[in-house]
Amino acid sequence: MELERLVFFSDAVIAIAITLLVVPLTVPEASEDVGKALLDRWPQFLSFALSFFVIGVFWMAHHRIFRFVARFDRRLIWLNLLFLMCIAFLPYPTAVLGEHDRSRASIVFYASAIGLTGTVLASLWQFVIRAGLLNERADARVIEYMTMRSLVTPLAFLGSIPLAFINLRLAQVLWLAPFVVIPLINLRHRQS
Amino acid sequence: MELERLVFFSDAVIAIAITLLVVPLTVPEASEDVGKALLDRWPQFLSFALSFFVIGVFWMAHHRIFRFVARFDRRLIWLNLLFLMCIAFLPYPTAVLGEHDRSRASIVFYASAIGLTGTVLASLWQFVIRAGLLNERADARVIEYMTMRSLVTPLAFLGSIPLAFINLRLAQVLWLAPFVVIPLINLRHRQS
Amino acid sequence: MELERLVFFSDAVIAIAITLLVVPLTVPEASEDVGKALLDRWPQFLSFALSFFVIGVFWMAHHRIFRFVARFDRRLIWLNLLFLMCIAFLPYPTAVLGEHDRSRASIVFYASAIGLTGTVLASLWQFVIRAGLLNERADARVIEYMTMRSLVTPLAFLGSIPLAFINLRLAQVLWLAPFVVIPLINLRHRQS
Amino acid sequence: MELERLVFFSDAVIAIAITLLVVPLTVPEASEDVGKALLDRWPQFLSFALSFFVIGVFWMAHHRIFRFVARFDRRLIWLNLLFLMCIAFLPYPTAVLGEHDRSRASIVFYASAIGLTGTVLASLWQFVIRAGLLNERADARVIEYMTMRSLVTPLAFLGSIPLAFINLRLAQVLWLAPFVVIPLINLRHRQS
Repeated sequence: MELERLVFFSDAVIAIAITLLVVPLTVPEASEDVGKALLDRWPQFLSFALSFFVIGVFWMAHHRIFRFVARFDRRLIWLNLLFLMCIAFLPYPTAVLGEHDRSRASIVFYASAIGLTGTVLASLWQFVIRAGLLNERADARVIEYMTMRSLVTPLAFLGSIPLAFINLRLAQVLWLAPFVVIPLINLRHRQS
Repeated sequence: MELERLVFFSDAVIAIAITLLVVPLTVPEASEDVGKALLDRWPQFLSFALSFFVIGVFWMAHHRIFRFVARFDRRLIWLNLLFLMCIAFLPYPTAVLGEHDRSRASIVFYASAIGLTGTVLASLWQFVIRAGLLNERADARVIEYMTMRSLVTPLAFLGSIPLAFINLRLAQVLWLAPFVVIPLINLRHRQS
Repeated sequence: MELERLVFFSDAVIAIAITLLVVPLTVPEASEDVGKALLDRWPQFLSFALSFFVIGVFWMAHHRIFRFVARFDRRLIWLNLLFLMCIAFLPYPTAVLGEHDRSRASIVFYASAIGLTGTVLASLWQFVIRAGLLNERADARVIEYMTMRSLVTPLAFLGSIPLAFINLRLAQVLWLAPFVVIPLINLRHRQS
Repeated sequence: MELERLVFFSDAVIAIAITLLVVPLTVPEASEDVGKALLDRWPQFLSFALSFFVIGVFWMAHHRIFRFVARFDRRLIWLNLLFLMCIAFLPYPTAVLGEHDRSRASIVFYASAIGLTGTVLASLWQFVIRAGLLNERADARVIEYMTMRSLVTPLAFLGSIPLAFINLRLAQVLWLAPFVVIPLINLRHRQS
């Protein structure tokens, strides 16, 4: 199996998972007023959009990592499969959050699912470094930059879990942090 | 990340979204007369077919744009992701329209969703021009042609929204305009 | 847009449609005896398997055609999109047939859907010949062989529709004809 | 049709099937306590994860086989299509097992489905050997190794069926055997 095929398979799974987010959105019943029913579903649309961009960020991060991978072994295939399992699972917590947007349990469940996915991807990156699978394009500066980047999403989402026991909305605001912090890290990296 | 990979990922998301249109079609219940139930579902089949061809047109337009793209930056990736999110969402308004074909709310919702998708794609094209990401194949004539083409679908669908407050069927007739106007623009372009 | 990309997009839509056949299979309810409920679902499994192989045959036929295509124009793209729409629709008649396996309406509906898909693909092949889009590998013998092959599936499925008004099981037996006749045509072609 | 296209189509179907495993996971109802409802669904999550890794193992095995394939004929295409049909079906027994985790019928059904899929893949490998479709990279040692490997999954899952009539949990423990035995076979192969 070549590296290219591994990346292709990963891209396919990510593309399918990101597009399956639409499946659980519920069509208004015949008895409902359609306009009102659609407006009432805004938590579903919001969780759809959030998950779409979160998975999009994971997709970009995954590509970035594999740009610096020279070769792979069985352990990397298994770590990558674990990452893909987390990605493929995400439409479910998204649906749960969309349906139960004020429930602490569903907010903690969603944050755990995204946080775990991010942790697996960060571990995959650490594994690539330690197992000596990097190619020559990865110098010390790139490694530091990529490591910092890979920690943002898991920190924001896992960090929101204790916060959810204080204030639900505050926890959810923290979920937006990666969309602010990652561009800042990118900026610093380009400037240096 | 290479340009080719970006296009591949976009193609995959579009192919999945276009094929997921079938999922919400409802199978007749055991208690129903199957023949009658299928005939009664013609609005579902019609909105399936309409969305299939609309997404097909978006797919072709997306390819046409990327034929003239020399290179890309982060902003283009994000605009493209926004476009893909709109595409991935379309099975939902299609299902709503199929289930509530006479509701003003669902017609306005559907027209907004398609209109927004078209607007994002037209903006993406404008961004490519202004950010200087075009390759040498894009001369002034091509740019004018592509710009005109990119405006047809958003104008038809967003234009149908006010019309829907006067007459629902008239609004829906306007949705067919792109299938007539785009070939005419193509014809003029080839003749010049 | 290159020919390769058109084939890739078609392959993706066919692969998705063939895999979506599983979605409508209904899980036994909590109140049901699982073993008995699974046995009762054999018409669903049978229509799943039949559609899987029919779409598989369409996929192979589509590839065979594009092996002889030198170039394409807008009309071919549209014919191909029409073919893909038929393919993407097939999970629905499959689900209807699986749920209502003894209903004349669902048998006629299924036969029409497959018959129409086959007719569109046969027309696409005729279009390629008449529009002069063939490459040099397509000699007179290949053209005759491919034309004969392309007619088998539409003839069997459209031919089963009048038969369904006489005897439902007889109509369904005719659906198996392509799996017998196409290998025979292949055999004759290889021997000549 | 080229070998590469066959592998691409297979990869696509496997990627879709593995990602569709999420679709049947049921969102807690409005009336349920979300936290409790999610905890109660652990059998669904467990069967999701098990099937994800089982399909992942099949994907790797499929790639490994095709690395040693020099050319293919119609019979290999059909055997491969049969394998893909089994893969595409797997989300269904996974959903049944998740919903009815203590039912003997659903455990036997799941084990049969995985066992059958593994049997088809092992037969495909035997066919490649006997039909002389191997390339020069496949020496006697590779053939023996691949044959042993290909038997592990079908033996474990088909072997669990009689066991399920004695003890359900014991049968399910046997399903984990491939994840232990295959690495051992790999280890032995690398050492020799």
